[in-house]
Amino acid sequence: MQLIDGKLTSKEVRKEIAAEVEAIKAAGGKIPHLAAILVGHDGGSESYVSGKMKACEEVGFKSSLIRYDDDVTEEELLNKVKELNNDQDVDGFIVQLPLPKHIDEEKVNETIDPRKDVDGFHPVNVGRMTIGMPAFISATPQGIMELLKRYKIETSGKHVVVVGRSNIVGRPMSVLLSQKGNPGNATVTVAHSRTANLKELCLSADIIVAAIGSPGFVKGDMVKEGAVVIDVGTTRVPAMDTKSGWRLKGDVLFDEVAPKCSYITPVPGGVGPMTITSLIINTLKSAKKEIYS
Amino acid sequence: MQLIDGKLTSKEVRKEIAAEVEAIKAAGGKIPHLAAILVGHDGGSESYVSGKMKACEEVGFKSSLIRYDDDVTEEELLNKVKELNNDQDVDGFIVQLPLPKHIDEEKVNETIDPRKDVDGFHPVNVGRMTIGMPAFISATPQGIMELLKRYKIETSGKHVVVVGRSNIVGRPMSVLLSQKGNPGNATVTVAHSRTANLKELCLSADIIVAAIGSPGFVKGDMVKEGAVVIDVGTTRVPAMDTKSGWRLKGDVLFDEVAPKCSYITPVPGGVGPMTITSLIINTLKSAKKEIYS
Repeated sequence: MQLIDGKLTSKEVRKEIAAEVEAIKAAGGKIPHLAAILVGHDGGSESYVSGKMKACEEVGFKSSLIRYDDDVTEEELLNKVKELNNDQDVDGFIVQLPLPKHIDEEKVNETIDPRKDVDGFHPVNVGRMTIGMPAFISATPQGIMELLKRYKIETSGKHVVVVGRSNIVGRPMSVLLSQKGNPGNATVTVAHSRTANLKELCLSADIIVAAIGSPGFVKGDMVKEGAVVIDVGTTRVPAMDTKSGWRLKGDVLFDEVAPKCSYITPVPGGVGPMTITSLIINTLKSAKKEIYS
Repeated sequence: MQLIDGKLTSKEVRKEIAAEVEAIKAAGGKIPHLAAILVGHDGGSESYVSGKMKACEEVGFKSSLIRYDDDVTEEELLNKVKELNNDQDVDGFIVQLPLPKHIDEEKVNETIDPRKDVDGFHPVNVGRMTIGMPAFISATPQGIMELLKRYKIETSGKHVVVVGRSNIVGRPMSVLLSQKGNPGNATVTVAHSRTANLKELCLSADIIVAAIGSPGFVKGDMVKEGAVVIDVGTTRVPAMDTKSGWRLKGDVLFDEVAPKCSYITPVPGGVGPMTITSLIINTLKSAKKEIYS
């Protein structure tokens, strides 16, 4: 059994990107620039955005943080989005979710220029991904694809069971892995709450992507010998022995499942550390006009 | 075994829509208006577009056909698309494919206003469909969904195997059937040329959607007793005994497979007759602002 080390891979990717930014600088090119809009003071959002800004610093990107109080109007926010759409210096930007209830998240999302939508949530990017066109892929699926690629995990002709059909993980993973490409070309089954015989289905899988948000859902008797298991779960469960009072739990019962696997992502330290790095990858792609010319 | 009669269903749907148009007229409302752009004189395209125009007439829609010769410039065509985007009277329009090689089909497609994209090929509509937002669904998948709905075929919790991953059939069918909804909530596997054990996989399916374009590909020994089989194949094979010199062949070996099925779509007369009707459904939805407000 080999652990897929997302923390290490994330570091490696960032190092490579930092070197590329150095080269761009040396050649007198424009430094990639990521902007983030943060509304309010939610603890989770604060910490996510701060992680994103730190990652920019680490790789040598320029970053901007635009803050609004909870009572910002939708119009004001939309105007800022439009301003960033037109700002030649900004290569990509994100609006940290969730937004206050009086603001229509869908409207904000659809106002972002798809060419700067490094979060990959705009319908144009989702549509282009679905059709197999170049697109910004959202953070978690892109992080998983990067891990599969770097660990040289064969997906072609393999049976992948994706447990969960969310728009941010299950759906894009099922599309990406069944498309032509490497990783890709897998036979993919999307399973969810209505799926019958989930245990048998998972037992038939060469690769399981667990993305249901139910701690310890995938148990030892659901996984065949030699399977690859990607655990996307990140549920906070109360813990007495941590400073924060909680601990991250994956969707996979690690102790039971890991011994049967050829490869497995741990939680924490597997898929999670790749997400912010995916955003950095997308910002670089945007700066280099790799997705949209 | 019950035949799913697409010809009959198509007639029924058109009758219902015709009645609705009558009611709109009686109330002094605006008559739905579909426009089509046809470039060149390809026989297939001519016949498709003429079928679409006739269907409009049948249900009482207004229709417009805009013709260009093969040597129309991309700019001229794009200008017409923009004109139709802005034409308040036109509810939806299509650009009949294929286009001559000197014209970028992708560019033309992306220039169409998604709110008038009744073919459902624009990335915005594909993206919205993938996310589960209201969207124009392209003709074939929408026709299949309509058949499943009208024949009250249970899909929830069923195992669907979609053979083929094309952007126009396999991919959207796999997304739609695995989403929440009715039809929907199925456990869907996307199979394709790289799939191992396709026979065993198909044998495990409650519902098979065959969309690979390979005549007679799905054989009797690949289908379990009581399965529902949707045949999307429409390959023209030479035939001595028809006026045209060819005959449509489905992806399913009908004579072997049909006796095992609970429901099956024949070819011709199954999925095919629903496609133009789907376009009519979309145009009505656009006129009623059901997808975009």
